Amino acid sequence: MARDYLDLIFLGGLGEIGKNMMAVEYEEDILVIDCGLAFPDENMLGIDVVLPDFTYLLENKERVRAVFLTHGHEDHIGALPYFLRSFDIPVYGTRLTLGLVRAKLAEFGGATSFDGRALRPRQMVEVGAFRLEPFRVNHSIADCVGLAIHTPVGTIVHSGDFKFDQTPVDGEVADFHKLAELGDNGVLCLLSDSTNADRGGYTDTERVVGRTLNEVMSAAEGRVLVASFASNVHRIQQVVDAAVRHHRQVAVVGRSMENVVAIAREMGYLRAPEGTFVELEALRTVPARHAAVLTTGSQGEPMSALARMSSGENRRLQVEPGDVVVLAATPVPGNETMVARTVDNLFRRGARVLYQASAGVHVSGHGSQEELKLMLNLTRPRYFLPIHGEYRHLVHHSDLALDLGIPRGNILVGENGHVFRLDQESARLERQVPAGTVLVDGLGVGDVGNVVLRDRRQLAADGVLVVALAVDAESGQVLSGPDIVSRGFVYMRESEALLEDTRKRVQQIIDRQSRKNRNNISALRNALRESLMPYLLERTGRRPVVMPIILEI
Amino acid sequence: MARDYLDLIFLGGLGEIGKNMMAVEYEEDILVIDCGLAFPDENMLGIDVVLPDFTYLLENKERVRAVFLTHGHEDHIGALPYFLRSFDIPVYGTRLTLGLVRAKLAEFGGATSFDGRALRPRQMVEVGAFRLEPFRVNHSIADCVGLAIHTPVGTIVHSGDFKFDQTPVDGEVADFHKLAELGDNGVLCLLSDSTNADRGGYTDTERVVGRTLNEVMSAAEGRVLVASFASNVHRIQQVVDAAVRHHRQVAVVGRSMENVVAIAREMGYLRAPEGTFVELEALRTVPARHAAVLTTGSQGEPMSALARMSSGENRRLQVEPGDVVVLAATPVPGNETMVARTVDNLFRRGARVLYQASAGVHVSGHGSQEELKLMLNLTRPRYFLPIHGEYRHLVHHSDLALDLGIPRGNILVGENGHVFRLDQESARLERQVPAGTVLVDGLGVGDVGNVVLRDRRQLAADGVLVVALAVDAESGQVLSGPDIVSRGFVYMRESEALLEDTRKRVQQIIDRQSRKNRNNISALRNALRESLMPYLLERTGRRPVVMPIILEI
Repeated sequence: MARDYLDLIFLGGLGEIGKNMMAVEYEEDILVIDCGLAFPDENMLGIDVVLPDFTYLLENKERVRAVFLTHGHEDHIGALPYFLRSFDIPVYGTRLTLGLVRAKLAEFGGATSFDGRALRPRQMVEVGAFRLEPFRVNHSIADCVGLAIHTPVGTIVHSGDFKFDQTPVDGEVADFHKLAELGDNGVLCLLSDSTNADRGGYTDTERVVGRTLNEVMSAAEGRVLVASFASNVHRIQQVVDAAVRHHRQVAVVGRSMENVVAIAREMGYLRAPEGTFVELEALRTVPARHAAVLTTGSQGEPMSALARMSSGENRRLQVEPGDVVVLAATPVPGNETMVARTVDNLFRRGARVLYQASAGVHVSGHGSQEELKLMLNLTRPRYFLPIHGEYRHLVHHSDLALDLGIPRGNILVGENGHVFRLDQESARLERQVPAGTVLVDGLGVGDVGNVVLRDRRQLAADGVLVVALAVDAESGQVLSGPDIVSRGFVYMRESEALLEDTRKRVQQIIDRQSRKNRNNISALRNALRESLMPYLLERTGRRPVVMPIILEI
Repeated sequence: MARDYLDLIFLGGLGEIGKNMMAVEYEEDILVIDCGLAFPDENMLGIDVVLPDFTYLLENKERVRAVFLTHGHEDHIGALPYFLRSFDIPVYGTRLTLGLVRAKLAEFGGATSFDGRALRPRQMVEVGAFRLEPFRVNHSIADCVGLAIHTPVGTIVHSGDFKFDQTPVDGEVADFHKLAELGDNGVLCLLSDSTNADRGGYTDTERVVGRTLNEVMSAAEGRVLVASFASNVHRIQQVVDAAVRHHRQVAVVGRSMENVVAIAREMGYLRAPEGTFVELEALRTVPARHAAVLTTGSQGEPMSALARMSSGENRRLQVEPGDVVVLAATPVPGNETMVARTVDNLFRRGARVLYQASAGVHVSGHGSQEELKLMLNLTRPRYFLPIHGEYRHLVHHSDLALDLGIPRGNILVGENGHVFRLDQESARLERQVPAGTVLVDGLGVGDVGNVVLRDRRQLAADGVLVVALAVDAESGQVLSGPDIVSRGFVYMRESEALLEDTRKRVQQIIDRQSRKNRNNISALRNALRESLMPYLLERTGRRPVVMPIILEI
């Protein structure tokens, strides 16, 4: 007898921004939707990226049939290179999404066996007990889809990241008709993007940015530099269109922008008349009035092309008075101060800068409240599960659903690790699976945990002080040292008195210990640590990591 | 013969937020205006606060006559306890400002000889060759003034931090008449607050927040908790007024809020009917419908009362379903993610939260473009010097002045350390004085510099690895070790193979060195450092600080 329920398993994307990843499980089949990474928060010192925890999927590896990608942003595809080390299964995505995945895998140097399969809107794909029907949505990257997942229990609609842009740059309007049809036929559960659930009204069309770019390219006497997310192909198209209209040639600066432009042109997602794109070197010979630059660094990333231009450290391109710089993005939370610094430095170089405070340089890729309500009204789901957002966004989104008449008991607000079980009669939190964060630091995946991070935070705040001595193993007598060395604690050359006093203090501790129990090394080590920490705190107001090292001879 | 020029010396507040401090110098007299601190940026690991560089004033100590404070915010008074260690001069400020300074000095434990002198709007003060006339302005703290500084060369108008609130909570409208009179009589130079120079229109009146608080206190069935900057006495007054109107008693939670409420009530800046304020313990017996809490933590500071309530770590007060929390503030740049985390956690506890996304929970204390233009038109200065803002704000503000017809040559956009010389014929950058940042870390003032910070950044990212060994001073033979200990690098218990390999590597380096020159300790130390760093990078992708310690016996 067939089961009459299915499970929705959330490994990411609930109550956080980033690392979107979930699974749909019915009997012997598990589908994965998206496989994204997150960027470290300010407490995760030294961490490069954050991955979802794959434990549950690894434990059920033989039943995991495929990965479906909604679009090509890092928070939806970034964990794939790590995931595919353990899973040899097909990856479904639209053409551009797969192109970006292939480029990413190539960067990681491998995955020749990558089994990418093209998704096309309205073309049904069957995998195990599931039939998947992608439908077009709009977002801040081209070629995005949501997914209708038809299961024996009912149809799940996953919105992907979306907005409803009535005048999209590529003309690909979201598939209202399919959503209406799904609603007519009955949707068991809608999973819908909550990122902007606390914003009223509608999100502006991407064309707003196009208008601004046109005005700037038209009016500026000097060069126009536009910084944008590399993946926002629509916006890049609008930069190119505006440049062409106003007789400017375009140079591309910055590795990720160069990569995406190459992929998007090759695959036909970015169109430009012959001769539009020129090398940066060639652009130098073009009058400023006819020059435009497309670059990265809209988030103020210190190593980005734009940040380096703003600080005068970019050898290939100097920003000059007369240049107009457009930051066609808003800062991602946490990047505000870096963006502000870049803007200030560009002003210092005499450029005019259009940034967040200026109107029309950015629109969001996520739908606001009216669009979220439209999605709910089109699909008319029995159950509603807000996804993709911090916890406050999930609550705001659930309030919208309540307003539209969905009963409170049919709205599921969850957290990562939650497994919701759906059937025709009920939807409930069934169990929990591991869904913590897996930290990537250099080559290490998951080997940095709380102990290491706690040490890093203490090291970051007050540095380290090492006390080293050699003792006779028999007598406990000190043969050499104590040597005291510190880093990140005080400027040692100007702290001789402190170090000398600390050395005396160490000697006292050694003397006291040796009277107590002559050669108990671990007792001495503890005594050093426990006595020095309060001593240094009293002397300096700082709490360095104290590392006593005792060599026995 | 009297000099016909005066110098404006900027030690802070130009091209940065915070540590506002400048000096006006004429012949033998130097006046200091404001003495603020800044908070560390994300690169200043472990730093508590940032002070202006007092070097120029110390070098001219005998000519420094007095400090004038425009208002009591940290970025205008916070460096005073440090400054007054070296300067025994009068400090002028309004009553509330001096009250806040006294509380601050008491926290620092001392300055019994503090010579605070009350400033009253429109009451002239003579100091040396200067006559100072304070005038009322509005801002997000009570009892603020700007300063008209009459000098033999002409009148300087310093706006302080300001907005023009046509309906201020305390009824103290900004002194338009005095500004007009100054303009009529001729202003040599206007120094004006640029913080909001990139915002169009007018800044809303503080009463907007009052309306929101009234609605919330009226509608909420449960307790209402309001988090605000402790120093915003007007906003606190509005919380109290709304609570009283809707029959709620108010408990104050959080040390800084308790302090400010005590000072403000004592000095008559905060009015409440008897019985309005109750102890938190007493509030427990009050029905939720009649309870309000005033607290700190509007910036999500991890140790604040609100952040601890949100994470369930506040023993004195738990947030519960039914509570309504109002964050009556916007995040200061850099605090966005901490604020978001607090909001999310409050939602997780079942509270309803009004925050930035909701309308009417905060208004700025700084004037927007129309107010800045009004200030310029009222004072009609010959020269204009935008102050108090990041560089982009100074540029925007100078654009406004250009629009109003001030010639470009009469507008001075500067940076910290600039000394502008003004006379009747010209205004120019005359010279520069030291104006870097002085970092306070624990008890140390100025002892942490770039070397220590660079080490902290490396320690923060990848930790530290110590290699210790004892060698025979004569033969160079290893007597003990190598011992390898790390912190913040890898989780040592799970990295035995790496540590064992590293130990072997160290042994190889020792062997190679001893063949070369048997007992050159510093050569061995360098060899260890230089060989281990690339080795560890290759093995782990990380760059820990490597500290080789060699004890000679």
